Amino acid sequence: MAVAVKALFFDVFGTLVDWRTSIAREAEALLEPQGFALDWLTFADAWRGQYQGAMDEVRSGRIPFCRLDVLHRRNLERILPRFHIENLSEADRRNLNLAWHRLDAWPDVPRGLARLKRRYLLAPVSNGNISLMVDLARRNAFPWDAILGAEIAGDYKPKPRVYLAAAEAFDLPPAECMMVAAHTNDLVAAARLGLRTAHIARPNEHGSGKGETAPKEPVDIAAGSLEDLADKLGA
Amino acid sequence: MAVAVKALFFDVFGTLVDWRTSIAREAEALLEPQGFALDWLTFADAWRGQYQGAMDEVRSGRIPFCRLDVLHRRNLERILPRFHIENLSEADRRNLNLAWHRLDAWPDVPRGLARLKRRYLLAPVSNGNISLMVDLARRNAFPWDAILGAEIAGDYKPKPRVYLAAAEAFDLPPAECMMVAAHTNDLVAAARLGLRTAHIARPNEHGSGKGETAPKEPVDIAAGSLEDLADKLGA
Repeated sequence: MAVAVKALFFDVFGTLVDWRTSIAREAEALLEPQGFALDWLTFADAWRGQYQGAMDEVRSGRIPFCRLDVLHRRNLERILPRFHIENLSEADRRNLNLAWHRLDAWPDVPRGLARLKRRYLLAPVSNGNISLMVDLARRNAFPWDAILGAEIAGDYKPKPRVYLAAAEAFDLPPAECMMVAAHTNDLVAAARLGLRTAHIARPNEHGSGKGETAPKEPVDIAAGSLEDLADKLGA
Repeated sequence: MAVAVKALFFDVFGTLVDWRTSIAREAEALLEPQGFALDWLTFADAWRGQYQGAMDEVRSGRIPFCRLDVLHRRNLERILPRFHIENLSEADRRNLNLAWHRLDAWPDVPRGLARLKRRYLLAPVSNGNISLMVDLARRNAFPWDAILGAEIAGDYKPKPRVYLAAAEAFDLPPAECMMVAAHTNDLVAAARLGLRTAHIARPNEHGSGKGETAPKEPVDIAAGSLEDLADKLGA
């Protein structure tokens, strides 16, 4: 690479953590004892299915920025009737919404990040809010140098401000930052601003074989895991 | 304490790091080989002496928010003539300004923070910018959960927004956050907003015996070091 990369920015949902089986597990743990029986993976998919549309409200300027916890809660309220889940207490709804703070990392992530930390500044550049990122980091031992992303930018990826605010926070030009994600659209948006890009294959993000196995557009590095990325970056 | 504290917010300059002898050392290392001979501690004091006035420009709204690195650079340009330092290259000025990224922690800090991390969320709530905090954390192994403070708030302590933005980032009410500082005015401002307060004695911050040895106003905890604070918090 012509310019040395100094910082790695990570997408989190799907790239570092397996949101789908984690949300299914958390929903089942809370709702099954209350007598609800449903397909928990379908429930996870339905909740996540509201994700982009809710952020579009902010990206378009139709509503002011609010953190992802707030959007997740609105999305939850929208899908609960669809699964005939009623009479859930406010405390249970709040707890269920915090399922997004209790997601587990893909197996390669802790070791991969530990290796990458030796050579690079590391930060999540996620649409998740700071407290959500902090809870995921504590749970999974993510060794962040700082929590960057949507909340410090006041907008949601793939809006340019989110990537640029992250580079500015580290006082680095975009060319010295690399976006790492399992989603081509995230990388395309970053590359357009001058960041380097690394794609991580997550073939099972949306169920077996239903995630991106390879980037759909050219990227600087295509890796099969964070450990593979560390190999390819010499870390 | 009636309400359990969940997060500790740390002042950094003076409370966690010994800026005075570190700046003197860094200035000497850069300038002495170029033939400059001066009292390096006096130089450090003069540079720091411009600190509050520069931030007052932002606090009062006379100039828009800019990060502390920018203010440090303006302050440096103001004091260089006073020490008859001329013909310094732009690269040297930039490097000298980054001396604030190379400050060393007081000896009790790494062990104290490691103990406190087991029980509390930890974040700097400093007037220093994110990249400065990141560099100090890497140098001194500060185990932050997130980098909060002036840059995410867009204003400088003791303006209320800085403390409130930090509590909001962790999604905590102020009463569940404790500000930790060696400066009474920082703690008074935090307490006024409902945060808990801990004072750390740093008797040598401004030279031997010239720092605050005790809080000048009531605080929740007065400690002699971070290890003492960990003892008093049962961490």
